[in-house]
Amino acid sequence: MMTQRTGPDVVRPPASPIVADWIQGLRPYEPGKPIEEVERELGVVGALKLASNENAWGSSPAALDAAMNALAKSHLYPDAACWSLREALATRLGIGMGELVIGNGSNELIGFLVRALVKPGQSVLSSAGSFIAYKLSTLAHGRRFVEAPLGADLGYDLDALVAAADATTKLVFIANPNNPTGTLLGRAALLRFFEALDRKCAGNPDGAPIVVMDEAYVEFIAPDRDDVAQGLELYRARPRVVLLRTFSKAYGLAALRVGYAVSEPAIADYLNRVRDPFNVSTVGQAAALAALKDEAWMRGTVAETLAERTRVSAALADLGLGVTPSQANFVLIDLGRDARGVNDLLMRRGIIARPMGPAGLPHHLRLTIGRPHDNDKALAALAAVLGG
Amino acid sequence: MMTQRTGPDVVRPPASPIVADWIQGLRPYEPGKPIEEVERELGVVGALKLASNENAWGSSPAALDAAMNALAKSHLYPDAACWSLREALATRLGIGMGELVIGNGSNELIGFLVRALVKPGQSVLSSAGSFIAYKLSTLAHGRRFVEAPLGADLGYDLDALVAAADATTKLVFIANPNNPTGTLLGRAALLRFFEALDRKCAGNPDGAPIVVMDEAYVEFIAPDRDDVAQGLELYRARPRVVLLRTFSKAYGLAALRVGYAVSEPAIADYLNRVRDPFNVSTVGQAAALAALKDEAWMRGTVAETLAERTRVSAALADLGLGVTPSQANFVLIDLGRDARGVNDLLMRRGIIARPMGPAGLPHHLRLTIGRPHDNDKALAALAAVLGG
Repeated sequence: MMTQRTGPDVVRPPASPIVADWIQGLRPYEPGKPIEEVERELGVVGALKLASNENAWGSSPAALDAAMNALAKSHLYPDAACWSLREALATRLGIGMGELVIGNGSNELIGFLVRALVKPGQSVLSSAGSFIAYKLSTLAHGRRFVEAPLGADLGYDLDALVAAADATTKLVFIANPNNPTGTLLGRAALLRFFEALDRKCAGNPDGAPIVVMDEAYVEFIAPDRDDVAQGLELYRARPRVVLLRTFSKAYGLAALRVGYAVSEPAIADYLNRVRDPFNVSTVGQAAALAALKDEAWMRGTVAETLAERTRVSAALADLGLGVTPSQANFVLIDLGRDARGVNDLLMRRGIIARPMGPAGLPHHLRLTIGRPHDNDKALAALAAVLGG
Repeated sequence: MMTQRTGPDVVRPPASPIVADWIQGLRPYEPGKPIEEVERELGVVGALKLASNENAWGSSPAALDAAMNALAKSHLYPDAACWSLREALATRLGIGMGELVIGNGSNELIGFLVRALVKPGQSVLSSAGSFIAYKLSTLAHGRRFVEAPLGADLGYDLDALVAAADATTKLVFIANPNNPTGTLLGRAALLRFFEALDRKCAGNPDGAPIVVMDEAYVEFIAPDRDDVAQGLELYRARPRVVLLRTFSKAYGLAALRVGYAVSEPAIADYLNRVRDPFNVSTVGQAAALAALKDEAWMRGTVAETLAERTRVSAALADLGLGVTPSQANFVLIDLGRDARGVNDLLMRRGIIARPMGPAGLPHHLRLTIGRPHDNDKALAALAAVLGG
């Protein structure tokens, strides 16, 4: 049983004789509650999970077909080099296969980056109110994690990031769009940030920090935004930029664990040195490859998600709630009071959302955008809970 | 493309400004050549892979059914706690669920053990001529790896291990049966080793080293051996014993990446702190659970493997070759000359085996036991190559 702990992210019990301080002080990630667990604990049936930003429309049928066919080779080790998937991604992106590393979800790649690149005494920098895995992976490796405050708009405050950077800064993680706030950084701001960071860190012993752009939600950016730099544009804009992408969100393959990193070949080579050889399952490789080729399915579900995001955001505003404008497949709701209590009441009505206390936002609830009738249920439950 | 490197396991090019020395010096694991690669490179068709110790009889049909059904939930994150699989394993083994941690293959668990338990300045101990992942995972985490020599029988030399243990020793890895030699340590020898190790390390700052018994091949031990301690017997014989098991070998699920660790709950808790929450795919969890319940299928294929192991070993001896008595699903063959040359000639005949230079056994070839007609092909090819 995974021990459930309470309290702050880092607690300091008496030093253990078995592990280092940073392991003793580490509190594991708490995932969104599984449907079965909520149903078992609260006696509800037909619970609806809008807690983990999955694709509510499922997976591409082509991807599922490919996954099924791949099962015939279940007894054989996967292709350690993920050759076919890297080949397809390289062609799609117009880069070399040596610039791609595949992970067991992009979460695993975060760990590779810390393990391969951050020396003892160096640190990792990101914002408070961003994806908690940056912090957890850093602490698990005994490296120092530096958190700059979020901006007033709940987006990354890039000036605060630059101010927090110092001679020890080796990796900077930027989620864009950000999770859990849904905010987006534009092109001009990012390019200015790159310059300011490089200026601030010009004298760093290892040179400029490596900036990791985590684009897990990039597919959900509204298509009419023309102020946005993403993907290869950022990768080309500055040396030492790494992109992270995932098949867990828009591509609908969270269960199969596939993400990828785009980096210069020298960095990819270092990541491969700390990667277990068979880290990505055969079925994951096959499904991701097929999903990539079935882009139309993904685009269709994204279009429906964006329409629902607009509708749900407006409905929440009508309830008098603060909603951070979102460029992802979720909305962050300011409840103006402790979100855990509201969340508990929602769970009793069979709606599983995610209170954001662990991200330093105790009044905020994150709600994944689902299919229309699911969103209707969530909105009705929220109205009932807040009105009651 | 995964860079192919040559030379010894640890090379020392000029220090890089980007990574620590131990990353710069690390050479990734080289997996057995994929069939497609051999066919492409050498222009052979119908190549036969006996290089990675997979189950030649495939996977349990019940496991494949469960995997197929699990694909319907491909868009949802896996159960982070691996609840059903841990529940079934706990029942099967008669232990608590808190004593089980599931990994993305047991290879991933090796990394967790190093990351969670080995502090800076501490070291990891194993034998030369054992599973290379112990060394690679240790080096990837910047910890020191100490290698004791193998015994004259190509098995673990436990006295040499004790001699090599010192005040820094934190983890000891023992593969039993050993890969790549197939040798087995008996009960009496292991219990004596535990005592001697604890005596030698009685004054270690963190107490006795944690001994990891890697039982990846345990199902292949001949059933008439009664001098063998394995599994829970060892786990109960001494505190700080960790067992590693896998679904990749006898259970025939190498592609789906599932292994598990049995340890005291405090250690399991530490391993969970460095584990990514969704490290095991839904399809892997479902297939492993079904495979565990279909023990009869596994036992049947193991029985066929053992019969073939006896037959192949005798046939190799008839060819005048040295064969280390094996308790695994492979045999280690002493060719009396550089094994790479023989291996290359075998590949041209469509047989993919594994030369064992990387394990410090340059004259040895490891050959997986396949189905009877596959073994016939391998034996014929070997006879032709050696006679030619």
